Amino acid sequence: MSILQSLILLSFLLSASHAAVQDFCVGDLSGPDTPAGYTCKKVSAVTVDDFVFSGLGMAGNTSNLIKAAVTPAFVAQFPGLNGLGISLARLDLATGGVIPLHTHPAASEVLIVLQGTICAGFISSSANNVYLKTLNKGDSMIFPQGLLHFQLNSGKGSALAIVSFSSPSPGLQILDFALFANNFPSELVEATTFLDDAQVKKLKGVLGGTG
Amino acid sequence: MSILQSLILLSFLLSASHAAVQDFCVGDLSGPDTPAGYTCKKVSAVTVDDFVFSGLGMAGNTSNLIKAAVTPAFVAQFPGLNGLGISLARLDLATGGVIPLHTHPAASEVLIVLQGTICAGFISSSANNVYLKTLNKGDSMIFPQGLLHFQLNSGKGSALAIVSFSSPSPGLQILDFALFANNFPSELVEATTFLDDAQVKKLKGVLGGTG
Amino acid sequence: MSILQSLILLSFLLSASHAAVQDFCVGDLSGPDTPAGYTCKKVSAVTVDDFVFSGLGMAGNTSNLIKAAVTPAFVAQFPGLNGLGISLARLDLATGGVIPLHTHPAASEVLIVLQGTICAGFISSSANNVYLKTLNKGDSMIFPQGLLHFQLNSGKGSALAIVSFSSPSPGLQILDFALFANNFPSELVEATTFLDDAQVKKLKGVLGGTG
Amino acid sequence: MSILQSLILLSFLLSASHAAVQDFCVGDLSGPDTPAGYTCKKVSAVTVDDFVFSGLGMAGNTSNLIKAAVTPAFVAQFPGLNGLGISLARLDLATGGVIPLHTHPAASEVLIVLQGTICAGFISSSANNVYLKTLNKGDSMIFPQGLLHFQLNSGKGSALAIVSFSSPSPGLQILDFALFANNFPSELVEATTFLDDAQVKKLKGVLGGTG
Amino acid sequence: MSILQSLILLSFLLSASHAAVQDFCVGDLSGPDTPAGYTCKKVSAVTVDDFVFSGLGMAGNTSNLIKAAVTPAFVAQFPGLNGLGISLARLDLATGGVIPLHTHPAASEVLIVLQGTICAGFISSSANNVYLKTLNKGDSMIFPQGLLHFQLNSGKGSALAIVSFSSPSPGLQILDFALFANNFPSELVEATTFLDDAQVKKLKGVLGGTG
Amino acid sequence: MSILQSLILLSFLLSASHAAVQDFCVGDLSGPDTPAGYTCKKVSAVTVDDFVFSGLGMAGNTSNLIKAAVTPAFVAQFPGLNGLGISLARLDLATGGVIPLHTHPAASEVLIVLQGTICAGFISSSANNVYLKTLNKGDSMIFPQGLLHFQLNSGKGSALAIVSFSSPSPGLQILDFALFANNFPSELVEATTFLDDAQVKKLKGVLGGTG
Repeated sequence: MSILQSLILLSFLLSASHAAVQDFCVGDLSGPDTPAGYTCKKVSAVTVDDFVFSGLGMAGNTSNLIKAAVTPAFVAQFPGLNGLGISLARLDLATGGVIPLHTHPAASEVLIVLQGTICAGFISSSANNVYLKTLNKGDSMIFPQGLLHFQLNSGKGSALAIVSFSSPSPGLQILDFALFANNFPSELVEATTFLDDAQVKKLKGVLGGTG
Repeated sequence: MSILQSLILLSFLLSASHAAVQDFCVGDLSGPDTPAGYTCKKVSAVTVDDFVFSGLGMAGNTSNLIKAAVTPAFVAQFPGLNGLGISLARLDLATGGVIPLHTHPAASEVLIVLQGTICAGFISSSANNVYLKTLNKGDSMIFPQGLLHFQLNSGKGSALAIVSFSSPSPGLQILDFALFANNFPSELVEATTFLDDAQVKKLKGVLGGTG
Repeated sequence: MSILQSLILLSFLLSASHAAVQDFCVGDLSGPDTPAGYTCKKVSAVTVDDFVFSGLGMAGNTSNLIKAAVTPAFVAQFPGLNGLGISLARLDLATGGVIPLHTHPAASEVLIVLQGTICAGFISSSANNVYLKTLNKGDSMIFPQGLLHFQLNSGKGSALAIVSFSSPSPGLQILDFALFANNFPSELVEATTFLDDAQVKKLKGVLGGTG
Repeated sequence: MSILQSLILLSFLLSASHAAVQDFCVGDLSGPDTPAGYTCKKVSAVTVDDFVFSGLGMAGNTSNLIKAAVTPAFVAQFPGLNGLGISLARLDLATGGVIPLHTHPAASEVLIVLQGTICAGFISSSANNVYLKTLNKGDSMIFPQGLLHFQLNSGKGSALAIVSFSSPSPGLQILDFALFANNFPSELVEATTFLDDAQVKKLKGVLGGTG
Repeated sequence: MSILQSLILLSFLLSASHAAVQDFCVGDLSGPDTPAGYTCKKVSAVTVDDFVFSGLGMAGNTSNLIKAAVTPAFVAQFPGLNGLGISLARLDLATGGVIPLHTHPAASEVLIVLQGTICAGFISSSANNVYLKTLNKGDSMIFPQGLLHFQLNSGKGSALAIVSFSSPSPGLQILDFALFANNFPSELVEATTFLDDAQVKKLKGVLGGTG
Repeated sequence: MSILQSLILLSFLLSASHAAVQDFCVGDLSGPDTPAGYTCKKVSAVTVDDFVFSGLGMAGNTSNLIKAAVTPAFVAQFPGLNGLGISLARLDLATGGVIPLHTHPAASEVLIVLQGTICAGFISSSANNVYLKTLNKGDSMIFPQGLLHFQLNSGKGSALAIVSFSSPSPGLQILDFALFANNFPSELVEATTFLDDAQVKKLKGVLGGTG
């Protein structure tokens, strides 16, 4: 095969494959967002580091009330995920730690336990069934999109899990924060949850809510 | 144009259009469900009545604790919606009535007030912002998918609204029922919501929950 | 629970939930459009009024030939719908009013009658079946995506309906306007519809068409 | 590399790849349809012939009034397309032939002229703009989903085109047939199109319509 | 019908249909890309030529080693396809020509032979089944998304095919180029393919690869 | 609140939430598959164990030629994932182990290293760029859908990673197996890859291929 022939083949293939765009769309977080994700960083500026994220390597700080930490690798932290329908997070639960009841409005979640013992559960909307399971190292569990769920360290030592989501931007709505950590007027919280006034005010106090 | 020519044209067009299937897929509720909806009723068995639903014409019964009623026209009630990405419901709120905090795991909702005055709101997940508005007759409001929201009759008489959803099967997870109307163990409810034991047991009592 | 502990919890939750973006994407109508909708208004600039639309509260003006009016609440009027897969419109039909045959290229439609009597119908593509129904107050009907359909006031007084669509931007192609209200050359209209020249020219005259 | 080693590798790879399903889902036309397509033929029963279709090799019969023929390769004819988001058809247009105004409710269409000269056009819904072009051999044109469009042989000899669709089941609604080739009552046709009674009855006569 | 009445009707219809946007979204290739495609060219600047592409009318240059040419009509060449879920390409194969093994990461492909004889095949992932067929003029074949496939002129003269894809931006990953036409280190190529060092270096030499 | 009132509330809520279906669709693997996934197991037969999978807890057997193992948790192993857009797998790599070049036709993949050091890479289709990175414990990397990629243990001990996919059924096409472990005729392999006959026959020998 001559050099000339090779170059001809080369030019064919380059020109043919030049048509291919959007194998990926690394998010330009400084640009506008759209319903389908961020606009794409120019391919010429993309490097392998756009596809790699090291933020899940360290344990989150569990020195807090819930003795737990969620470290996200969503598109806002890991722009290479943009448009690709997936993201990750790390859950650290110290002894007694809990990820309180929450939903992900835009994604299903699958969890795998790497260390310790986690009691996890979700509640269906169709019949308010509670699906509860104690998970050990190596066990995985699926939490369908939009349903209330929780993870609680039910073992003796600390626990660690990796979770992945079916969206680069799954959202995270923590029930207690939605109810008590903002200016949602207490009387409306009470009218729409049937919780007692004292209960609402107590938790607003803890979580910094007003109104 | 001769009869013969007409018949030839007729046969052309019939044969060409015969290829077209699945303008619609009326759900066969007796058949299996799939992630994309029910299997389709045979077209030869479909009549206009599959595309019409009269169940929203009557007010729901609001003689209950919340003084409100939700009457759904989801695919389970209205099989013609199957696969078409939309559904409806009717909200009746007597004086003082409320649709308690809830989510639709699989759909966004848009509401239009037909009668009375409704205070409605939702809470964002990104910053727990509360978006509250008093809506009058003719006002419409959008509730994005999966976010906690409520509707409360804030007027003097009864209120009526029509809501539509971006799915034939939006789901409906009412917070109080998810927490208190099933066998979700009280200690887990408390551990994952920080609600007091007395509060949890009181509402479990009201809503028929156990555990 | 101490203030300090509360602040620690607060900071945990804020940081965790900060990852969540795109609960919604209020359309920035001044920015570029994309195949998935408009770019998003910055969340910090979003207020509840972006999620509320009052334009459906007033009857449309039916003092016209068709004695009818369509008032849309699509993304162009109601930017909070952007990316959420749903929109609304209001149909007012005076006595004898009609919404002429039309399609929505990008959405299915579900209608609910609020007042009066409406004869509605659509035509399937698979066998050109006509699905016709007279709808009374409270009846709803589904019109599958892309199929020709109409609504006609068949009662004695005026009629009112609310329609919702499975897209924030359903499109609206009114048959008569597509054929007669533009510069579509008469000879092409005739060649592709088999309508007579006199008929085409008459309706072009009525509807302001040329050519 | 020993035979033993090879067998071990083999068994690894077989077992790993065994997890992969649904590279394709050849439609079982005798089974139920779903909103996402037909149920899948068992992979063990699939042969290469499921992925091949020979029906576009022959010219359609253009000895009819419109001097044209559409030969579809939709999922109903070519089950290997099931679930794959694409289909084909062949257009034959004798001298003077025309594919009358029509829509595809569920797909965009792209056409390429293989022989002859075709005048094609579509009408937008946003402003009823008419986009018209005379296409020669090798020219391609896109017709966006759901919009009225036509193809007309504007050359001296016969014309041939291949069209492809963004769905295995694009649908085909031919305007004249939707209006005149069924039992759509003349008075409703007239009321919803403003066509004259004589015109409607004439075309119903030609196309075999009743009512 | 008076002029005045006509104008009233006109204004109704214009205003109603003004709500409809995004029948299409011609890609603005100078603007940003998004996961759903390019931002849209303003409708006022769109002409019919945005919907027409003439680049497939000429045979590609097959005077190269593979004796073949792929001429794409993807969104990068044909911006009117943006957001519409479909694209085209033309394959020219001189005697003995071949389109080497390749995948389209983002689309299924359907091919129709216009001239000559093509041996085509793809390999499934589930059981590594090889689906091979010799295709003659008029035959079509589907290649499911993401699977390795090829086309080879197995006849005596030149061959020509049109292919269409279920995406405006299907991508094209040619196996030989992915392995040998870049700076993929030889030792990694060998370790991940089990190819011999001499084989890898020979093909890197031919295809201009380094490392 | 009286018992009676409670029961009334209960019946309201049960009836309202009864409308909600398809929070999830646990796959009935014995039933038919569809393009959107398996048909759903009846909700009454679903237990929490449908949402839990323990198969990733044990290391795969790496006593094979590639010194590596892939243990999938796809829908075929873990039916609770059906329809939820996500799945998992576990990669075990002994010293020197490698997951050879492969693609997932239907999903993007994100990997997180749990133990050891992994050299991973993928090749883009647009310019055949090679994106290579050495990943340590805690690092994650995204591999966009359909692109060739590999993982290789580049450390001194064994390595372990968890990968997740944006589909319950991502597919897995291992290049060497697609080429050499089936009955793909050697001459076609050679003609479509430019590999030498000796190379092809050698690897067919190793991998059990014929032809």
